[in-house]
Amino acid sequence: MPKQNVDILLINGWLVAMDDQMNVYPDGAVAIKNDLIEAVGPSAEIEAAYQATTVIDCRDCIISPGLINAHTHAPMTLLRGLADDLRLDVWLYGYMMPVEREFVDHHFCYTGTLLACAEMIRSGITTFCDMYYNEAEIARATAEAGMRAILAQTILKFPSPDATNYDESLDYCRQFIEEWLGHPLIIPAVGPHAPYTATPDMLKSCVALATEFDVPLHIHVGETALEQENSRNQHNMTVVPWLDQYNLFQAKVIAAHCVHLGDTEMQTLRHYHTGIAHCPSSNLKLASGVARVQKMVNLGLHVGIGTDGPASNNDLDMFEETRLVAFLQKGIFNDPTLLPAKTAWTLATIEGARALHIDHLTGSLEAGKRADIAVISINATHQLPRFSHNPEAVYAQLVYATKATDVRDVIVDGKLLMRDRVLQTLNEQEIIKEARQVAKQIDTFLIAREGNILSKLLAISADFIPQETFEIQVKINVPESINLDTMLKETELETFRSSIREQYDTYFLFEDKEAGRLRFREDHVKTEQGELKDTFYRMTLMGPTSEKEFENSILLSRGRYTASAGHTLRFYREYFKPASEREVVKHRRRCHVAYQDTHFAINLDRLGDSETKDVYLEIKARTWSAKDALRKAELIGELLEKFGFKTESQFKIEYVDLIEQV
Amino acid sequence: MPKQNVDILLINGWLVAMDDQMNVYPDGAVAIKNDLIEAVGPSAEIEAAYQATTVIDCRDCIISPGLINAHTHAPMTLLRGLADDLRLDVWLYGYMMPVEREFVDHHFCYTGTLLACAEMIRSGITTFCDMYYNEAEIARATAEAGMRAILAQTILKFPSPDATNYDESLDYCRQFIEEWLGHPLIIPAVGPHAPYTATPDMLKSCVALATEFDVPLHIHVGETALEQENSRNQHNMTVVPWLDQYNLFQAKVIAAHCVHLGDTEMQTLRHYHTGIAHCPSSNLKLASGVARVQKMVNLGLHVGIGTDGPASNNDLDMFEETRLVAFLQKGIFNDPTLLPAKTAWTLATIEGARALHIDHLTGSLEAGKRADIAVISINATHQLPRFSHNPEAVYAQLVYATKATDVRDVIVDGKLLMRDRVLQTLNEQEIIKEARQVAKQIDTFLIAREGNILSKLLAISADFIPQETFEIQVKINVPESINLDTMLKETELETFRSSIREQYDTYFLFEDKEAGRLRFREDHVKTEQGELKDTFYRMTLMGPTSEKEFENSILLSRGRYTASAGHTLRFYREYFKPASEREVVKHRRRCHVAYQDTHFAINLDRLGDSETKDVYLEIKARTWSAKDALRKAELIGELLEKFGFKTESQFKIEYVDLIEQV
Repeated sequence: MPKQNVDILLINGWLVAMDDQMNVYPDGAVAIKNDLIEAVGPSAEIEAAYQATTVIDCRDCIISPGLINAHTHAPMTLLRGLADDLRLDVWLYGYMMPVEREFVDHHFCYTGTLLACAEMIRSGITTFCDMYYNEAEIARATAEAGMRAILAQTILKFPSPDATNYDESLDYCRQFIEEWLGHPLIIPAVGPHAPYTATPDMLKSCVALATEFDVPLHIHVGETALEQENSRNQHNMTVVPWLDQYNLFQAKVIAAHCVHLGDTEMQTLRHYHTGIAHCPSSNLKLASGVARVQKMVNLGLHVGIGTDGPASNNDLDMFEETRLVAFLQKGIFNDPTLLPAKTAWTLATIEGARALHIDHLTGSLEAGKRADIAVISINATHQLPRFSHNPEAVYAQLVYATKATDVRDVIVDGKLLMRDRVLQTLNEQEIIKEARQVAKQIDTFLIAREGNILSKLLAISADFIPQETFEIQVKINVPESINLDTMLKETELETFRSSIREQYDTYFLFEDKEAGRLRFREDHVKTEQGELKDTFYRMTLMGPTSEKEFENSILLSRGRYTASAGHTLRFYREYFKPASEREVVKHRRRCHVAYQDTHFAINLDRLGDSETKDVYLEIKARTWSAKDALRKAELIGELLEKFGFKTESQFKIEYVDLIEQV
Repeated sequence: MPKQNVDILLINGWLVAMDDQMNVYPDGAVAIKNDLIEAVGPSAEIEAAYQATTVIDCRDCIISPGLINAHTHAPMTLLRGLADDLRLDVWLYGYMMPVEREFVDHHFCYTGTLLACAEMIRSGITTFCDMYYNEAEIARATAEAGMRAILAQTILKFPSPDATNYDESLDYCRQFIEEWLGHPLIIPAVGPHAPYTATPDMLKSCVALATEFDVPLHIHVGETALEQENSRNQHNMTVVPWLDQYNLFQAKVIAAHCVHLGDTEMQTLRHYHTGIAHCPSSNLKLASGVARVQKMVNLGLHVGIGTDGPASNNDLDMFEETRLVAFLQKGIFNDPTLLPAKTAWTLATIEGARALHIDHLTGSLEAGKRADIAVISINATHQLPRFSHNPEAVYAQLVYATKATDVRDVIVDGKLLMRDRVLQTLNEQEIIKEARQVAKQIDTFLIAREGNILSKLLAISADFIPQETFEIQVKINVPESINLDTMLKETELETFRSSIREQYDTYFLFEDKEAGRLRFREDHVKTEQGELKDTFYRMTLMGPTSEKEFENSILLSRGRYTASAGHTLRFYREYFKPASEREVVKHRRRCHVAYQDTHFAINLDRLGDSETKDVYLEIKARTWSAKDALRKAELIGELLEKFGFKTESQFKIEYVDLIEQV
């Protein structure tokens, strides 16, 4: 019988088919014609039946289905190593979001994806599932690289780098789907970011869109314990049932992370054939926890493995992830037989394909599937020796002893993307040059920002406002018995507003005095009866002051900026990294008075804890005008006289400077 | 001023000194003369002051102190991938110990160490701390490779591959120390394996030996929760105080693992300046748990990082370990700011040196220390781009984005061991050839053993004995009301021993019928009053039978082997991996009787649980002789007649074959 012509023959390899029978051919071969696998079997049989122009000898190599990276944010390669070892909020709100807001555009997404594809091809990945912005640019880069991908356009309830609102995102997503649907490599998808960044209406629109085009829907689910806690508090249910209300799982869902799922939630996902993308490195590095992967596998859920974005990993190395999946299940759930190498390699390949709902296309080496293949050298010192007494040792070899850098050749859709570790479709040096260019701009931006507290504060505050430049203030140490209301009554001043406040101030001090000071104020407003009425949190940046002393008051001139503080004190501490801190706690009785048609705040402040109260009277005014400031300073002098205080008893420093350094 | 002559100049690198000031030189250089670092500083300064014959340009590289592998069993490279995903006891008693008993000799230790050194040099390791057998051979190989090492000769209370008792090991260890003490690279050490494999006397001798020569003492401490549990049960205290009783920590101790230490135990180790070798991969893979590293660091303990032996890891990759240390502390102890990259790299270098009590020699780049250096390329796709806004990003780059394969050059004691990824002191191909040879022998041994249940059983049983080849037995289904004692009395048979037993049998069945069956029997011996007197656990291998049926009995001829079962049923299940199992539970009244001067066992057996008891009378005898078997079969016939049973009521299969497959 004459030999059949095919395009590529891979021969003489240790072949793991990852098919239903888990066939392993110690001397195996694959015949590839066009984009498809024509045949898989022992080398002798395949070579007897087929001939090809390209014959690749895979001696001392494993032939495996290419790895499937079930969850990433590819362009974030450009943010690799930007900020590490930070708490999630500091990392996200302090670094990722401000930088993304500033830099994520078409060029960023295209360049970052090219860099990601180069790295992924090098480490044997043939398919990835992405969620980011400007997804059409990511598709363009991925198609150029020749990789297979499910690309989900991010949809958020709030403005994102590529849309001012979610209607815009949905429109863009529809356009993106229409443009790419039916492409041999790219499967467009809908990417509502997460339950906590979605509205019910937004979710329904996402499901409708995914259903209309029969494309996958990619979403983060149950990544942190906090997400579940908030969901229970806000919706009285955990995230999976909450999403289920809006029929989310009717779509072909790929749920990333799933670290914190209850048993019932797992059952729900199983019922709907939802795919899971487990991301062990990212879940550890961001301290989210360890997903119960063996449990999910036992339940029959399809679990794939993802690297997550390289900003939180910091690489796209599926070998590292796959090993970690096995290690963590054993070590954390206390049983070394959990998630053996064979299962781990299944998750990295065919189960990954199932999780992405594309196992009819890829994930195993079987005739009729697309030719997505990794040829992995097993001849490095760190992989030797080998034992053959256990036929399943090939999986242990792959999972426990092989590195991403051992991948030799990569084929996707029948096309060689890497041969002998040389990329065939991408100009790596050009990509790196371009990536360095983007990184340099980000670096310049961050260097400027990190050197300036105002810029740092602006980067994380939506409602930041500059305040009056001039502050006129005087403080006088007064007897504990003083009564502000009586005093004001006696002096017949018009009091038009008053309040009682407990104020907890934390000052961040920096080594560079010119940098100014930051004050985090927790302000409890109380009724006359002492009941808590309201609580405010404010950040105030006080620039360095130029003081001008008057006879009866201090006139301060400085830049002041204030914003509501949406984050915790801990957040600001970790974000600003002050050299030292000081705390000022005071009970304040505040009256706003009018004197000579001018407003003043008069505060009676009891400093410190209840045991050792020092009592001060403070008179204060603010203005934008230097001339007005002088006038107000005069008026404060008159007020002091009216109250009968001697000017020499006043003092000129601020409360924070009275306090010992913490 | 004329330039000073040195041997090697490393210039233009991003240098992390890991000294007390944590100096980082963005364009740094090192001058090396003989075995020592002559100077470290900015390239411009160093180049102005020194000239060398060998100048290595480290552009786009990080220059770091070489990595310190604080705990390994180097020759176990030869057992890499031998057995994975097994529970500790199956792995240890079923595979490691039988193979080590058979193969670990001088050649094994020498060859395995050469392979380990090749792998370690390739991944930037310059110093390692070992514990194994034939340590002088390990020293010979390490010195040839040119690596620095602390080499601890293993001492066990029971026989080991290199000694029949611990006196022999201690003698060998003394000899080894005397031979290698003062070597520029090798520091010999004493290695009592672990608290649970030591006697107090042995520990005292180890401490005395280590103290006499002022060499380190290396020991596994608190690796598993079980070790601590057993220690509390046996000694009424945890392992650290138990060891402290014998003044162990007076020596320069390096304690490996320390996964399960209480706070007080940590304080004790801190007090004695004990070094810790943390092995994250191994602790996960063997399901030991995660050590509280950040806590130990906070207490001021010196914690190094170890790969552990490549049989349980399965490699010697310190980059992987270092990343894992950071990941695990964050992910498991719920805080992403724990163990930041800077700390992780410290543990991998200078803290590793401190843990090994050799920080006066190595661990940092400082004038006067030995020149132990790794030059690490940072130009691979997976490491790009880079950001410079954060001066500590260099540590994140090393820990989170760099792989062992990025190491370019390695210098130990001033000598280049690798340059441009080519090993300078070792013939890698020769070593690999030799390693493959050893592996092949082990493979052959294991293939033979795995194919033969008897060999597998022999490998794990100390007291295995063959039993009589011929078994003559007959069973009769009898009424539930039967009373064996009355029956024997009436027939005037001499009864010389009787017992009551509850027997729980688990049969392992294999696909290959010729392989025979394995029976795990839990045998509860009771008094006439029903009180538990004794419990036996036995493994019995029953070879395939050739049956010969007699008129009144069945004559079985087969190989039978029995041994006391020292492991759990679970162990045997995981070790033998039966195709299926069957359980037989019975209540047995057994009488030994003499008839015609011949001994017979007569059993009255009630099968199954108490609800549905089938009652059988069984008459049994065994013999080595075929002729004697025939005679006993005749006598059994006579006995049956004597008891008044019809021969046609007898049946010919064994209980296990009555039972449905589990």
